[in-house]
Amino acid sequence: MLGRGGVIPMGNVKALRCRECRQEYEPSLKYVCDECLGPLDVTYDYSRVRVSRSTFAGREKSYWRYLELLPVERSSVVSLDAGFTPLHRADRLGEALGLRHLYLKNDSVNPTFSFKDRPAGVAVSKAREMGLKAVGCASTGNLASATAAHAAKGDMPCYIFAPRDIEYAKIAQALAYGAEFIAVDGTYDDANRIAAQVADTKPIGIVNVNLRPYYVEGSKTLAYEVVEQLGWRVPDHLIVPVASGAMLNAICRGLEELHELNLVDGIDNARVTAAQAKGCSPVVDAFKKNRDEIVPVEYPNTIAKSLAIGDPGDGIYALRRLRQFHGYAEDPDDDEIRDAILLLARCEGVFTEPAGGVAVAALKRLVEDGRIGKDEHVVCYITGNGLKSIDAIEHLLKEPRIVKPNYMDVASMIAV
Amino acid sequence: MLGRGGVIPMGNVKALRCRECRQEYEPSLKYVCDECLGPLDVTYDYSRVRVSRSTFAGREKSYWRYLELLPVERSSVVSLDAGFTPLHRADRLGEALGLRHLYLKNDSVNPTFSFKDRPAGVAVSKAREMGLKAVGCASTGNLASATAAHAAKGDMPCYIFAPRDIEYAKIAQALAYGAEFIAVDGTYDDANRIAAQVADTKPIGIVNVNLRPYYVEGSKTLAYEVVEQLGWRVPDHLIVPVASGAMLNAICRGLEELHELNLVDGIDNARVTAAQAKGCSPVVDAFKKNRDEIVPVEYPNTIAKSLAIGDPGDGIYALRRLRQFHGYAEDPDDDEIRDAILLLARCEGVFTEPAGGVAVAALKRLVEDGRIGKDEHVVCYITGNGLKSIDAIEHLLKEPRIVKPNYMDVASMIAV
Repeated sequence: MLGRGGVIPMGNVKALRCRECRQEYEPSLKYVCDECLGPLDVTYDYSRVRVSRSTFAGREKSYWRYLELLPVERSSVVSLDAGFTPLHRADRLGEALGLRHLYLKNDSVNPTFSFKDRPAGVAVSKAREMGLKAVGCASTGNLASATAAHAAKGDMPCYIFAPRDIEYAKIAQALAYGAEFIAVDGTYDDANRIAAQVADTKPIGIVNVNLRPYYVEGSKTLAYEVVEQLGWRVPDHLIVPVASGAMLNAICRGLEELHELNLVDGIDNARVTAAQAKGCSPVVDAFKKNRDEIVPVEYPNTIAKSLAIGDPGDGIYALRRLRQFHGYAEDPDDDEIRDAILLLARCEGVFTEPAGGVAVAALKRLVEDGRIGKDEHVVCYITGNGLKSIDAIEHLLKEPRIVKPNYMDVASMIAV
Repeated sequence: MLGRGGVIPMGNVKALRCRECRQEYEPSLKYVCDECLGPLDVTYDYSRVRVSRSTFAGREKSYWRYLELLPVERSSVVSLDAGFTPLHRADRLGEALGLRHLYLKNDSVNPTFSFKDRPAGVAVSKAREMGLKAVGCASTGNLASATAAHAAKGDMPCYIFAPRDIEYAKIAQALAYGAEFIAVDGTYDDANRIAAQVADTKPIGIVNVNLRPYYVEGSKTLAYEVVEQLGWRVPDHLIVPVASGAMLNAICRGLEELHELNLVDGIDNARVTAAQAKGCSPVVDAFKKNRDEIVPVEYPNTIAKSLAIGDPGDGIYALRRLRQFHGYAEDPDDDEIRDAILLLARCEGVFTEPAGGVAVAALKRLVEDGRIGKDEHVVCYITGNGLKSIDAIEHLLKEPRIVKPNYMDVASMIAV
């Protein structure tokens, strides 16, 4: 509970508040409500946040430009210069799909090559602020590298808990940053359970467990940046890949904050849509069946391993956000996902891992059946990098043609 | 030769000029001097370039912010939003090496994940401006993806010529963008020779052959950006990995242009150093032996495949630049390169392919023997992405520890 006076020396942060029963707590490593077991969120004293559109114009080209809306003091920041990634105008993909105003938020070019640098950077910074001696995470792969790299920069040991069947490139990358990689012989949900037990028993900041209230704040910047990059315009439709549901929820929260702070005219016309892979689509399934509960998927089975969370922690909240923001939910299958990866690469020169293909494939479905109109301003989140999951598409690629270094042999191969 | 009147409708470009005999030509696909066979460079009418430091402040976050100094009209630009990559302040690596002001120019986060998006983007844009129907390149790997992705965005067929033994991730990435990949059973120099023959006989713009005068201009932005990001300060020392030598030459040319345009106070105190791998170091070798000629390396043998050009086209010019800019040249071996990759990842959370390790390892040598002082402002160019060459380091990584999803087993593994 908030101490008397209620002023906490940490920027504009007011409290941790239960997302269910609204009980408030002093900021700490607490992440579950004592009263109702609901998740805790950071709340801010928005009356103290004095920003306007011009505040941000000259600032650093990273998500730390929004420091007033992040739960970390400047002096604690561990930065890899992540964020403020390109909002890529996708005219060729738009034409292929039938859209005139399509944009890609390209987070494949973050420092560790996925959007996870946003939440991991905020959480590791918070761990440093709190004086923790080590950090870690439960990961489907991308978070492993994001946490390990920020831990390296912040000079803290890092423990990764991940299912052993994730893409090898993701394991190798996290190991290169010096992390301890503990490969759990089970699903992501098993790895997550182990990480939660570690968080409860060791003095370690697990970024997506006991640091989760701070962690999820980092992903709000995916909303701030898109709106700022569009000239402080809120897009008509945002297509968001969903794993735990935390990112989608954070993007919606970010939009609400921009409205709260009068940085945008309104958010009532913004739709938010969820994209999952057919082999693991508990949120999409609940949405389509109009259920209020998420039925966990016991054995996820999809090439989109970074989205393969069978029992998504924020799934129920993502579901509520879809309804609040009048969005849709789609779950393309692995073939559609692969086709979308290649369509994206061949139209826009953007190379994504399957999660980005899920978003593009879901968008394709929505345009095809008329749920998105051709004049809408659409933003599609490309959250990770194709180099991490080449296996997913390699059988679709042509073999390189091997030739002796002889001009005549080569010339005959060239159609032009 | 310049036509009468001499005004060419292409921005501030004046002519193509021979780097050796200064003969001038009207801009075209010509790339070799008729008189002396020297390489041709783009020259500009600097009196028409009206820019000041403030000109650039509010511009797009890509290298196209310097359009006045690039040989392409705005309407021809094929952009993937490359460039304006982070200049990462590397305090931890600096401390490890003994430097107080070390910065990394992190081009691993370009759209196709190497610095090659700079020259390839300019060349593909020029190909479009010239109305060419196809493009291509000779590549050690990174240029393949950069050219293929820009060709995809520009809706042009793309032909890649590369040695067949380059990293598989680089081949797969280029194929994903839809390129025709012709794997030459030989060295890079063989692939380059084939590409040159294709350029001379087919109506194809080979970005690093017949488009080379325009291509090399893109890499000048590596100088512009560093200087702008340092608040228009020229660093004391720049550490540059060298393959063909074109990038180092372009960085030096970029510094000269900033001086010509009065955007910086002076460049007399800037040193420029070349870094090559011991298994292919023709430029470093010539520098150290104080020779004026480059002796080609017939069979390059190093993990730094992206630098493995045995007969570097601009090697002689890179050598002259090292002398002009009072720099050094170093050639760390593969073990030093691997150690540097991991040192960089573990200090700074930046994951590079071997070329970046070559630069860091060369820097380490220079600091250790006192050629760079601890108070100098040093910029080290990290030109490519570690995900493309995991093979190079994987035997140095610890194996992930595989465990059953059981808390007690896991808890015993955690030292904290």
